[in-house]
Amino acid sequence: MQFPELKNDRYLKALLRQETDTTPVWIMRQAGRYLPEYRATRKQAGSFLDLCKNPELACEVTLQPLRRFELDAAILFSDILTIPDAMNLGLYFAEGEGPKFKKPVRTQADINKLFVPDPTESLSYVTDAVTLIRQELDGQVPLIGFSGSPWTLATYMIEGGSSKDYHHSKGLLYSDPKALHQILDIIAQSVVVYLNAQIEAGAQSVMIFDTWGGVLSPSAYEEFSLRYMQQIVEQLTREYDGKKIPVTLFTKGGSQWLEQTAATGCDAVGLDWTISIDEARNRIGDKVALQGNLDPNVLYADPEIIQQQVKHLIDKFGPHNGHVFNLGHGIHQTVNPDHLKVLVDAVHDYGRKIRS
Amino acid sequence: MQFPELKNDRYLKALLRQETDTTPVWIMRQAGRYLPEYRATRKQAGSFLDLCKNPELACEVTLQPLRRFELDAAILFSDILTIPDAMNLGLYFAEGEGPKFKKPVRTQADINKLFVPDPTESLSYVTDAVTLIRQELDGQVPLIGFSGSPWTLATYMIEGGSSKDYHHSKGLLYSDPKALHQILDIIAQSVVVYLNAQIEAGAQSVMIFDTWGGVLSPSAYEEFSLRYMQQIVEQLTREYDGKKIPVTLFTKGGSQWLEQTAATGCDAVGLDWTISIDEARNRIGDKVALQGNLDPNVLYADPEIIQQQVKHLIDKFGPHNGHVFNLGHGIHQTVNPDHLKVLVDAVHDYGRKIRS
Repeated sequence: MQFPELKNDRYLKALLRQETDTTPVWIMRQAGRYLPEYRATRKQAGSFLDLCKNPELACEVTLQPLRRFELDAAILFSDILTIPDAMNLGLYFAEGEGPKFKKPVRTQADINKLFVPDPTESLSYVTDAVTLIRQELDGQVPLIGFSGSPWTLATYMIEGGSSKDYHHSKGLLYSDPKALHQILDIIAQSVVVYLNAQIEAGAQSVMIFDTWGGVLSPSAYEEFSLRYMQQIVEQLTREYDGKKIPVTLFTKGGSQWLEQTAATGCDAVGLDWTISIDEARNRIGDKVALQGNLDPNVLYADPEIIQQQVKHLIDKFGPHNGHVFNLGHGIHQTVNPDHLKVLVDAVHDYGRKIRS
Repeated sequence: MQFPELKNDRYLKALLRQETDTTPVWIMRQAGRYLPEYRATRKQAGSFLDLCKNPELACEVTLQPLRRFELDAAILFSDILTIPDAMNLGLYFAEGEGPKFKKPVRTQADINKLFVPDPTESLSYVTDAVTLIRQELDGQVPLIGFSGSPWTLATYMIEGGSSKDYHHSKGLLYSDPKALHQILDIIAQSVVVYLNAQIEAGAQSVMIFDTWGGVLSPSAYEEFSLRYMQQIVEQLTREYDGKKIPVTLFTKGGSQWLEQTAATGCDAVGLDWTISIDEARNRIGDKVALQGNLDPNVLYADPEIIQQQVKHLIDKFGPHNGHVFNLGHGIHQTVNPDHLKVLVDAVHDYGRKIRS
């Protein structure tokens, strides 16, 4: 496929720890419910899942935040549960209750039915969306593809939805670790083919969201989450069409294990807001780039305070290459979009200032 | 008041890092919904709040787990929201929705109405329960009193209940830190008089639960949570009736800030399960005792695995004084009580073995 030439490569350069004119910024869940135009498109689509499975509308909501803010990357609008959905577990969204699976994975018989979905078949709506977005972006900024981590996906598959206490998934972890490893192995294989298909379809960088890695003990994190993310990193297409494809790993609540995460061979590590970015940088040096890590709640404050907090964070990272500015978690749905504009502009202004 | 002599002081000794014959153990939420006898008493009481406010029934549920398991401490059955309730914020529990306040604290006018509750008045049901439990315990094990931390209580008071994103409380933190400090200061003063009243009424050790400290950034944790816990530690009655009253601080998700927490002057720090207890001990030496930190989900596994995990944790702590065995968080309500018996017995058996 031929795509228009990339005009703004700040984000990709920062992930590879190369010099940039200012600090690049994108925002987790930048295409989301805080935007009235997103809510309108979502209504038009029907359900959340209908929106994810409609490439034209997924493309539309992906591009919406870029029309308002000078963001340095677009991220595919999708859900982390596309893989278990393609494994025929019966994903649905109960209003106000979050994702659910009709057929949770609990027994060996359930495990035996799992398979690696062919992304050109049941997940083609994702790769179609990737290609369409990449075309529509017209080289404005790079496109990020993504997946959930094996452990994070496994928790939803085993619990049959979200969980407060991880009763079944951690029950399996402690009672029958071999069975859990079987599940994680199939998911990890699936993530590899899924992300490589996104890269072939046009994703210029990929990110793995380990949303629930932080609920594990340190040894369980290494054995049941990090190990599989490392396998994926090793098997991903890291160069495509002559361009490097940077990989970012993000474990929410995982800053204790920063060194181990940085040692997987990924290009960048995402940080939540519970660690100081200067401490993070002291601990890992320039081994990987760092993405993050403003508390999303700063966006509830007044513009001057948002600007102060942005400056403070950029100062803490210091005059190094390899910082991608982001929140430490997804933007909250009740944030005023104008406040995000203040943040994005402040990042670019101050990022330029600190470099001159 | 005269109370019967204490027969088992393992828990108090371990908190003071003195030698014990085996590792003491108690369990967060040991008086709780996983016990059928608790559910029966709760039904008899009416609502959860009715149970908290009835000293006889609060005493009954406090003692229930001690009849089943050889626990080394009892903990007052109560709720962390007793203080804001005594501030007349209108605490109620909506079934299945958690705690709510009719009058959340949002404006300066709301703040001006806050006051330090007199524990001999609106909180006398708590001190009455403490004295009754202490009498009924008959010296079997020591009694732990407790409170929520100022920051944790403030989140409920400002949000008007539980929160997913801390919209209002963190909004205030970033927009009007002075107003938040006013609130925290009144709560901290209230916690001091409240815990000192519990100590006078018979509590032999106190613990402060900072359930939501872990959602803060490092600098916000120091300024808005830790600072107030330190103030409390400094003003607590640390010796009563010739006996030391050890103080334990527990910030869920706070193991990154272990050194700072240990430096407050407390006797012990509670750990959640996301840190290895050997790493925690390496970081703070024997400056304080450590309480924790088994993943509560281990109790869903088979007895042999529970025993293995207990041994593994005690081995990791090593042959030192100053370990109080506990889970890293409250026991889940769907745990089989027989599994807790396996855990408690394994702690004592292996704790004895490692010392001989």
